[in-house]
Amino acid sequence: MIRAGIYGATGYTGIELVKLLQRHPAVEIAFLTSQSHAGKTLREVFAGAPDRPLIAGEDASLENVNVVFLCLPHAAAAETAVVALKAGARVIDLSADFRLRDADSYAAWYAHTHPAPELLDEAVYGLTEVYRADLPGARLVANPGCYPTSVLLALRPLLLSGVAITGPIIADSASGVSGAGRGLSLTSHFVEVADNYSPYKIGRAHRHLPEMEQAIRWWRREAHEQAPALIFSPHLLPVPRGILSTIYINLGEAVDEGELRALYAAIYDAEPFIDVLPAGELATLAHVNHTNRCAIALTPVGRTLILTSAIDNLIKGAAGQAVQNMNAMFGCPETTGLI
Amino acid sequence: MIRAGIYGATGYTGIELVKLLQRHPAVEIAFLTSQSHAGKTLREVFAGAPDRPLIAGEDASLENVNVVFLCLPHAAAAETAVVALKAGARVIDLSADFRLRDADSYAAWYAHTHPAPELLDEAVYGLTEVYRADLPGARLVANPGCYPTSVLLALRPLLLSGVAITGPIIADSASGVSGAGRGLSLTSHFVEVADNYSPYKIGRAHRHLPEMEQAIRWWRREAHEQAPALIFSPHLLPVPRGILSTIYINLGEAVDEGELRALYAAIYDAEPFIDVLPAGELATLAHVNHTNRCAIALTPVGRTLILTSAIDNLIKGAAGQAVQNMNAMFGCPETTGLI
Amino acid sequence: MIRAGIYGATGYTGIELVKLLQRHPAVEIAFLTSQSHAGKTLREVFAGAPDRPLIAGEDASLENVNVVFLCLPHAAAAETAVVALKAGARVIDLSADFRLRDADSYAAWYAHTHPAPELLDEAVYGLTEVYRADLPGARLVANPGCYPTSVLLALRPLLLSGVAITGPIIADSASGVSGAGRGLSLTSHFVEVADNYSPYKIGRAHRHLPEMEQAIRWWRREAHEQAPALIFSPHLLPVPRGILSTIYINLGEAVDEGELRALYAAIYDAEPFIDVLPAGELATLAHVNHTNRCAIALTPVGRTLILTSAIDNLIKGAAGQAVQNMNAMFGCPETTGLI
Amino acid sequence: MIRAGIYGATGYTGIELVKLLQRHPAVEIAFLTSQSHAGKTLREVFAGAPDRPLIAGEDASLENVNVVFLCLPHAAAAETAVVALKAGARVIDLSADFRLRDADSYAAWYAHTHPAPELLDEAVYGLTEVYRADLPGARLVANPGCYPTSVLLALRPLLLSGVAITGPIIADSASGVSGAGRGLSLTSHFVEVADNYSPYKIGRAHRHLPEMEQAIRWWRREAHEQAPALIFSPHLLPVPRGILSTIYINLGEAVDEGELRALYAAIYDAEPFIDVLPAGELATLAHVNHTNRCAIALTPVGRTLILTSAIDNLIKGAAGQAVQNMNAMFGCPETTGLI
Repeated sequence: MIRAGIYGATGYTGIELVKLLQRHPAVEIAFLTSQSHAGKTLREVFAGAPDRPLIAGEDASLENVNVVFLCLPHAAAAETAVVALKAGARVIDLSADFRLRDADSYAAWYAHTHPAPELLDEAVYGLTEVYRADLPGARLVANPGCYPTSVLLALRPLLLSGVAITGPIIADSASGVSGAGRGLSLTSHFVEVADNYSPYKIGRAHRHLPEMEQAIRWWRREAHEQAPALIFSPHLLPVPRGILSTIYINLGEAVDEGELRALYAAIYDAEPFIDVLPAGELATLAHVNHTNRCAIALTPVGRTLILTSAIDNLIKGAAGQAVQNMNAMFGCPETTGLI
Repeated sequence: MIRAGIYGATGYTGIELVKLLQRHPAVEIAFLTSQSHAGKTLREVFAGAPDRPLIAGEDASLENVNVVFLCLPHAAAAETAVVALKAGARVIDLSADFRLRDADSYAAWYAHTHPAPELLDEAVYGLTEVYRADLPGARLVANPGCYPTSVLLALRPLLLSGVAITGPIIADSASGVSGAGRGLSLTSHFVEVADNYSPYKIGRAHRHLPEMEQAIRWWRREAHEQAPALIFSPHLLPVPRGILSTIYINLGEAVDEGELRALYAAIYDAEPFIDVLPAGELATLAHVNHTNRCAIALTPVGRTLILTSAIDNLIKGAAGQAVQNMNAMFGCPETTGLI
Repeated sequence: MIRAGIYGATGYTGIELVKLLQRHPAVEIAFLTSQSHAGKTLREVFAGAPDRPLIAGEDASLENVNVVFLCLPHAAAAETAVVALKAGARVIDLSADFRLRDADSYAAWYAHTHPAPELLDEAVYGLTEVYRADLPGARLVANPGCYPTSVLLALRPLLLSGVAITGPIIADSASGVSGAGRGLSLTSHFVEVADNYSPYKIGRAHRHLPEMEQAIRWWRREAHEQAPALIFSPHLLPVPRGILSTIYINLGEAVDEGELRALYAAIYDAEPFIDVLPAGELATLAHVNHTNRCAIALTPVGRTLILTSAIDNLIKGAAGQAVQNMNAMFGCPETTGLI
Repeated sequence: MIRAGIYGATGYTGIELVKLLQRHPAVEIAFLTSQSHAGKTLREVFAGAPDRPLIAGEDASLENVNVVFLCLPHAAAAETAVVALKAGARVIDLSADFRLRDADSYAAWYAHTHPAPELLDEAVYGLTEVYRADLPGARLVANPGCYPTSVLLALRPLLLSGVAITGPIIADSASGVSGAGRGLSLTSHFVEVADNYSPYKIGRAHRHLPEMEQAIRWWRREAHEQAPALIFSPHLLPVPRGILSTIYINLGEAVDEGELRALYAAIYDAEPFIDVLPAGELATLAHVNHTNRCAIALTPVGRTLILTSAIDNLIKGAAGQAVQNMNAMFGCPETTGLI
């Protein structure tokens, strides 16, 4: 039995994680923390949630805890990671704290000196399909951002292939409102969101940009090529959950669709959570919501390749991928508790 | 030209009122106030709104202002009403401050001593179709609540008729989220509201209950009958705007549908904003949203009469009815600026 | 292993059932039928659905099939039930065909002579919490309607108690659009439904009315009382799934809330899928969506008792309750595959 | 008084047009036609619509009719245009029939030989802000498509400027469901659309592509440049109305934001319906829904220019622009009936 603690159980990611872990056959939940709701039960905070006590983070005992999930704000997550690692627990961090390898970049994007830069090298970037080999030995896993999961899984085979790419890659993404968290803000007010559709932080302004460019550089280096830049345009969708990314890549020359499909098939055919859709079908939220899956469609148009990629931001983009990482870390089949 | 000032222009009711008054051919907007956004323009606060300055309430000059609309929290509204009346402006109050005639009832329901009880007798209850005769001479109008508008317009002909009613009247109402205002609250968070449907303050707990029972008593007294009590169950709908009330009345005996329809026709056939729907058609939000109309359907079922009644909560339930009242107060045709 | 066939797998109920059965540890799916999509796979018909073949109903082999689920139109369901029973399969019918015990009533409400009246007496009404004792021996189970499930589970303890009820019970219900099925109709068109809220077939006009009144009579008879009539007002909600019923009962005298809660606790405390909510909390769709649970809240208001009751119409109101019934029929714990 | 007839009044565009014309001070509605609902009134077909008779197209008398609006399927529109022009009425066609100047291109994209190719040269492309000089003398106006309106208004100043553009322009657009019409289709079923977001016909597959490329060629020719190609990716949004286009243009070199803004200001500052948003603000549906306006934002990011452009597809993208065109044709101020 894996004894798991969740820090920050009362956000949308936290509650999703509780639900997944609760029906995971190999997991026992050790504790749930909440700074704002300590003393209550989870069901007092979420209609229909399990009737489990919420405690303050500092009251959580790490004794005999195998793994902790951090659904905390950045900086707070890194500080808790240090404590948990010292107590012998493995850490899956769903915040942004260990995603960027470069403490300076972190400081620039998150306006905060990194609380534990000495751990950056050790952290495994938990895009499970890519880094699963590193997970069994990992003490610290940086669960990827939701947008990056949708964009990077779609780009990975293409980037690895060494196909020439000219100009910036454009990722035009749309996310459900749970991606913005449960905190109160006019931008999440029902009347402002319903019947609306809003771009925000487009271009090179969103914090998920450096995370995606970092992976693009990593993968492009393997392929001995210079890494293309990214233009990233997130939009707020009037739906509770789901991300769709429509990605435009200018290739040096028109690409053969058959070769392209072979490329993706070689890498993804055996993946239980990745569906490369047949020709003529495009990815939509309906393909993936309430699942841990990523649906990817390839649409070559002359020298432009259009990828559409869909995930459930709370599952494959957060809690589900965290469980998938945990499964890999602890030797369970990756699909355990996720199907 | 009617010179009109709006206190509290940056809530959902306020912005709706600005839009209506802006295209009203006989109105000139004198000022817009906002406590939280003074110094900005309205378009900085609302995407696509007109580019008009917002000033603090205390900076608004009432000189040469004919009428002010109060879209303020209760108590603040009454205090502003006193100031405006003293300066010679007429007042249309969209808060609850002058709806209840009884200062004790007000204090009990609003947890606040009434700031201007001496004005309660003078205030006209601005259900335009019922009290329009009092409007040309009125200095102070209490614009009705949104739920009461939908329920009372539907009940009025029945109550006046003197038909026997047994047991409490049940009003099961559903409202769009704009009814809860633009303030931040978890209950208005998109993710909490979307895909959900929630009863709240059901039974005898909502502040609109005493307002409705007061009118029922007034109208029933005219008909020399004892007034029935009300059970009122509001629900939050995942839509931005609109109220539908489904109202159940137990009659002493089965009612003849033809007589019933004659009753409603006699009172409402000449009303430009009230549509009594033909047999077989039920009221829905689609009948009324973005209009100042109230759609009412009569469905007799044995000894139970079911009324369905729909309004746009921001227009007929607030800003539109306020303009209709202003039209009646200043001698304009009631439909001016509302069609 | 239970070998299960699904007739009519490509409606909303069918697809939900496939998903539930697919992760049920004791079930193997034998076949999926579809009249309009035979020859395709389920994933061609539903984005993201499993890649299983669809066959015509007449091509389904019943050999070694233990149970069939009928997600068919009424009349077609009864005809298939006859065939399946003859072949030795047990039958869980999600249509209306075996819900009403009286063939004349069926003919009146469904405008169709019952195709197999000889089976009506044998069919178990599959409100699992009430009739589970009859399920292990049942060959034929009539899975309850979605609205009746929400209303009857809420009323059951009260009706059994023998508390006096005066006048009709009023059930004001709101349902998500999946309840109307996947067929094409202007009433399910996105633009007609979104931002709208619509009553339909209110009073005594909806086909679920006789099903509910039948159960009320059954249960009231046990309590040696005359059965109250029902006024039933369904409304269409702009959400994909979920039913909330707000139910009004006039009691002969004011009821003690403590006694009332004890009544419900006695009957429901051990039920894994029924949550009687604590005082002050009302049932909402958020309590139950994507689960097999029913949330019930008790709100006594003088001599009126208001019950709010919520279910997911596709799960507890259809496919989930069908699986719960199957579990009881085949000796599995009722929660298997449902948590 | 302008006497106006509407062919095809019972689609979403038709009903919007009826509402606009009804409150237009210089218009009298001569007739409304409907093939499927002739003999009914408009309010029997649309909840809350005006109580006007619907007649069959062939029963419409064109005597003394000054202008007809064609809200008909393609091909049917051109045939009706011929009849109306012969009868002396001017024609505003909201179908696609007269948008493409080239009958072969029309035949290729619409799979139909053009019914009246002799009229193609005469038709004015009714993007009012661009072609208003041609409208007073026009007999036949091709009202632009909804997507093209949002994309072309945003691109126009840039294209005219002669700034170098490399590679294809990418227009990633999202539209509300009314854009797909009131016909029945699974893709417009509420349950399929709600909580979903779906790309469709992306790349170079949508019929609005040649319309946009035609205008790009026209405008680029004026600027003595070769016309860039277009990649166009429409997506279906779970909202009733509104289009947002996010447009990516690779410029030969980084552009000075001040110069860019000056370019747009020079062309659009005097336009009553075009809002070029200040720096830092992006276009959203909330800026424009229920208005005839187009909101455009400029976001230069290095050598990539991102334009966001929003319209209400039923108003500026269809009925509103048609009225704006009518105003220009008949010498009314363009804003008449539209503010």
